[in-house]
Amino acid sequence: MRTELADRFGIEYPIFGFTPSQDVAAAISRAGGLGVLGCVRFNDAEELDEVLEWMHENTDGKPFGVDIVMPAKIPTEGSKVDLDSMISPEHRAFVERTLDDLGVPPLPNGERVDAGVLGWLHSVARSHVDIAMEHTRKYGQIKLIANALGSPPSDVIQTSHDNGVLVAALAGAKEHALHHVEAGVDIVIAQGYEGGGHTGEVTSMILWPELVDAVQDSAPVLAAGGVGSGRQIAAAIALGAQGVWMGTYWLTAAEYKLGMEPDADGPSTVQKALLKATSRDTVRRRIYSGKPARLLKTKWTDAWDAPGAPDPLPMPLQNLLVAEAHARISAADDPDVVAMPAGQIVGRCNEIVPVADMIADLVGEYEQAVGRMNETLKAPVS
Amino acid sequence: MRTELADRFGIEYPIFGFTPSQDVAAAISRAGGLGVLGCVRFNDAEELDEVLEWMHENTDGKPFGVDIVMPAKIPTEGSKVDLDSMISPEHRAFVERTLDDLGVPPLPNGERVDAGVLGWLHSVARSHVDIAMEHTRKYGQIKLIANALGSPPSDVIQTSHDNGVLVAALAGAKEHALHHVEAGVDIVIAQGYEGGGHTGEVTSMILWPELVDAVQDSAPVLAAGGVGSGRQIAAAIALGAQGVWMGTYWLTAAEYKLGMEPDADGPSTVQKALLKATSRDTVRRRIYSGKPARLLKTKWTDAWDAPGAPDPLPMPLQNLLVAEAHARISAADDPDVVAMPAGQIVGRCNEIVPVADMIADLVGEYEQAVGRMNETLKAPVS
Repeated sequence: MRTELADRFGIEYPIFGFTPSQDVAAAISRAGGLGVLGCVRFNDAEELDEVLEWMHENTDGKPFGVDIVMPAKIPTEGSKVDLDSMISPEHRAFVERTLDDLGVPPLPNGERVDAGVLGWLHSVARSHVDIAMEHTRKYGQIKLIANALGSPPSDVIQTSHDNGVLVAALAGAKEHALHHVEAGVDIVIAQGYEGGGHTGEVTSMILWPELVDAVQDSAPVLAAGGVGSGRQIAAAIALGAQGVWMGTYWLTAAEYKLGMEPDADGPSTVQKALLKATSRDTVRRRIYSGKPARLLKTKWTDAWDAPGAPDPLPMPLQNLLVAEAHARISAADDPDVVAMPAGQIVGRCNEIVPVADMIADLVGEYEQAVGRMNETLKAPVS
Repeated sequence: MRTELADRFGIEYPIFGFTPSQDVAAAISRAGGLGVLGCVRFNDAEELDEVLEWMHENTDGKPFGVDIVMPAKIPTEGSKVDLDSMISPEHRAFVERTLDDLGVPPLPNGERVDAGVLGWLHSVARSHVDIAMEHTRKYGQIKLIANALGSPPSDVIQTSHDNGVLVAALAGAKEHALHHVEAGVDIVIAQGYEGGGHTGEVTSMILWPELVDAVQDSAPVLAAGGVGSGRQIAAAIALGAQGVWMGTYWLTAAEYKLGMEPDADGPSTVQKALLKATSRDTVRRRIYSGKPARLLKTKWTDAWDAPGAPDPLPMPLQNLLVAEAHARISAADDPDVVAMPAGQIVGRCNEIVPVADMIADLVGEYEQAVGRMNETLKAPVS
């Protein structure tokens, strides 16, 4: 499963694995793909610094990437206090009432969350970039910086290139992809409607070849949204992509430990929810971040769909509004009340599997698919 | 581009082309695919009889199919008068007002439409089956009967099998596919969210392999929703389908003459609308038939999305409600006011092309895609 893009990164398979978990990201890189660490959860630059150091120590010198969330338009910035004042009491009351109705307890020891959204702010995302650049100058392993929302600012692209780091950006429509290329982005990640997290309306089957044709030789395209098997990787290559960008699928990796107690055994609460979900158990809503994002359908998303629920707020206010709710939901232990981005591929997340086995399966099934296609070119047996 | 299913039908390519146009259906069969004539527009069994006779005379003895619309649950049946009384005056007033606002004139010569929906009724669909069976006993060319809504009744399946006709049914979810197979359906058409007409929420990238895995050896799967290039056919085969089911793509075939004056030149009003639409210019709504169906986004669909618009009625009432509106819109000449099912692939419908050229392009691009995939299996050049 070699493509030019895989060769360019010096990786065995063009499987780009986005995950907020350093354990999973490192395992993907060790297994021959490119692990891409999601940074939005790091409000504190020092914490990211430590995690990248850990990544260095656990990836056998193999390349990996980082994913930041830097909106194309600089959103409402300001201190937590300024932003807080922009959220209506009705919105806050709805969240409190919903958590009560769903039986989600307050955080233990009267703890409060008040910085839970800073990763969505422009200034924090910039600090992620700075830390990543420092690391790549030190160890040379960070080969990719991806932006989940629009083209990164031009100085970020410039700094990345100066440090030998390629820049990728997510696109849900042709116009986004063309804008990225014009801004100097190296790789377009075409994210279809079925993907987890932020998506547009156009599905992968339509979007991937549309963006491949739109950007032509200006940038390779990574296929995102709906990939969780070697057959889907084969579809991506058939449609003209140079590789795949997978997110949801790694959430049920054995190495995924986020939200679990250090010594916990068995699947986490979120994993239990993912394991039982079918492909029809997601919804695309603005309730997570303020922009349309696909989430696991749970009692939490149902509450926002019920009559009388308020409209979600714009980014980054919505995330501020629900930050503590997300923390409370995470700390609770109910697979029916989960706030989690997930794509329709969640229907294939049916067991907890180590990353190395996942990748071996993807590669094996890919090769079978190509074999099956070659059969269709044979002349009929007469 | 051979598959077992293509061999079973004795066709060159596993390209199943659904179209309401006999000219297009015949051209697809002549070019090596299987043309499938949509019958819902025939309220009069004799008219279908004549058209099938024409198909026989224009297909060089090649096989073709018919598509009927027979809801799994027998819907509210009854005379036109009974059904009419179930439609509220408010709904009628909204339709009249909207047509006025959009400048759609009444039908010429004070004509009225009052039978425009009978094709959606169970009894009419049954008469389509009877006519098709008569024809296949006479000429043996009708090899497929497809049902757009649920599993056909068991006696229809039985009659079809008795006449050597295979039965296909559309499915938008795993449960539908399993039900079809249990009912004796031979071929499952997996229609993704991006498809034109009735669709579920799960996209083709997810749905196709999910249904392939669900039905396994019980039935081959045709991939529907999002196919308009050889790369997408390659994706379908990669994902495990035995062929593709294409609908929207044929609407801009040169042979498509529905809604045009007999001697008209150049694209029809509907074709003009399709040619300028992008992949983002569709919506999935209940306003066409009462069940969610993807339509071209035009001023007509916008009107139903505007504040104050009524909720659509259940099938078949909604179709009764809008039957005359559809006729008036068709008779008018405004590409911005069109009522037309279309999938997201409409973004690729950018020129008027003869069917034979379309199929040659599909086949050529398919072979290129397989070639590209074989490249990925080669060892690196050292």
